[in-house]
Amino acid sequence: MKIVIAGLGNIGGSFALAIKTYAPEHEIYAIDIDAESLRDAEESGLITKGYETPEEIIPEADLIIFSVYPMILKSLVASYAPYFKEGAILTDVTGIKRSIIEEIEPLLPDNVDFVFGHPMAGRENRGLAFASGEVFQGANYLFTPIPRNSEGNIKLLTDFVRKIGFKNISSISPDFHDEVIGFTSQLAHVIAVSLINSDDNDRNTKAYTGDSYRDLTRITNINEKLWPELFIMNKDHLLSHIEGFKGQLDQLTKAIENEDIETMQKMMIESRHRYHDLHNLDESLWK
Amino acid sequence: MKIVIAGLGNIGGSFALAIKTYAPEHEIYAIDIDAESLRDAEESGLITKGYETPEEIIPEADLIIFSVYPMILKSLVASYAPYFKEGAILTDVTGIKRSIIEEIEPLLPDNVDFVFGHPMAGRENRGLAFASGEVFQGANYLFTPIPRNSEGNIKLLTDFVRKIGFKNISSISPDFHDEVIGFTSQLAHVIAVSLINSDDNDRNTKAYTGDSYRDLTRITNINEKLWPELFIMNKDHLLSHIEGFKGQLDQLTKAIENEDIETMQKMMIESRHRYHDLHNLDESLWK
Repeated sequence: MKIVIAGLGNIGGSFALAIKTYAPEHEIYAIDIDAESLRDAEESGLITKGYETPEEIIPEADLIIFSVYPMILKSLVASYAPYFKEGAILTDVTGIKRSIIEEIEPLLPDNVDFVFGHPMAGRENRGLAFASGEVFQGANYLFTPIPRNSEGNIKLLTDFVRKIGFKNISSISPDFHDEVIGFTSQLAHVIAVSLINSDDNDRNTKAYTGDSYRDLTRITNINEKLWPELFIMNKDHLLSHIEGFKGQLDQLTKAIENEDIETMQKMMIESRHRYHDLHNLDESLWK
Repeated sequence: MKIVIAGLGNIGGSFALAIKTYAPEHEIYAIDIDAESLRDAEESGLITKGYETPEEIIPEADLIIFSVYPMILKSLVASYAPYFKEGAILTDVTGIKRSIIEEIEPLLPDNVDFVFGHPMAGRENRGLAFASGEVFQGANYLFTPIPRNSEGNIKLLTDFVRKIGFKNISSISPDFHDEVIGFTSQLAHVIAVSLINSDDNDRNTKAYTGDSYRDLTRITNINEKLWPELFIMNKDHLLSHIEGFKGQLDQLTKAIENEDIETMQKMMIESRHRYHDLHNLDESLWK
């Protein structure tokens, strides 16, 4: 296939690297506004050729991977639409789905198929310089098919992302996607930001951290140009997850206040069960 | 030195392994109620000899490392006290300090020196089987000296734990210890337990997780026999840290509710600064 990566940043660059390594039978092209990045990528052999505008390469593209910020996606798709090849497959990498699909679907000509997707391998670092094909290895991938998608194209993309390294590839509804991502990713970011921002700057905390604090704040190297938009686009689910988390937090806080060991132990035993379930571990092997 | 490890569980076993590997000039003995563990440790050469009671080996001990649950520590020290060698150095591994010191200090004869300490390398797994000398490598160590401690003994212990792998070794006050550990360790555990327990069990969340959720819940494999006691013993600091965290969480939640991008961006820029400071990274190198 001729694959065009629209947006050769961190995720787009990681796609290019992973395709080059694990599916070298495809030709990789890129469109980006950064001419220097494109030239570097051409010179290093990462892409066959880079373009700053769509009209020359989009008519040749069998697969277009839109790897841009969600707020740019709509205008980019609109500006590429006149040039799509008959039967082209389009996909995106956006971390929320309902509102994106609602925006994009009306722009699509009948003769292309946009299969919306979400590679669960975000990097906190931005830019092509931090791109890596290895972050995809073993990661999860979510597709959120819509009624007009062809089964064949969903299967083609599923096989394609498996080949470049993704492991568990699911097809779920856009609403369920936003619910579950609101929990596993967005709530996690809300918590991590709140935690690190509640540190007392005068304490020089970093001299006294163990792994726990570093694990819980790893994702605070957060991209402020991306995440507020994602939060707003998924506001309903995210606020409901925050509510649920605060309910548990308040229960545990109350148990600490009341020195209620029994309730604390119950909550910890429950969390251990869930830990073992999450990691597919046999709890009985662990004393 | 003749070193006695009192409690050959996960942390005690890790001490034995690290001493054997990195400071083999010392003789390692252990006291434990589990005769089988002691026999295994003797047979594998991990310890020179194991004892189920103190009267035979404690009179020979130059250094005693108490690596037992905090609620057991007091009675253990009391029962060993008649046998301490003149000039013996004692230390513990307890995760909170003020209340432990208050309990233990009155029990101590004048001719021994208990330097309270906290290796910041907890493992979520329990038992000798999970012990590892490697978890200490590069980890932080906190000592909380009291007025009666000898400078020489604090230095001896500092050199000793550096030799077996610890890197940043600080001496701080017991109250500051409890404040900072209440934040970096205890608050982190409170948050992680609340997060995983707020998951909807019917969602099969594990099929859709990325690294964020796994990072934030890694410490939920929590020991319910230990942590409620630690929380209660540090209740004042911990509750104050929970308050601070909830203040930030409420502020971010309100910004999401109000679709207030500016506030969200401010909080994320702040969290990124703090991330770079925590990891001693130069933020200007990162676009």
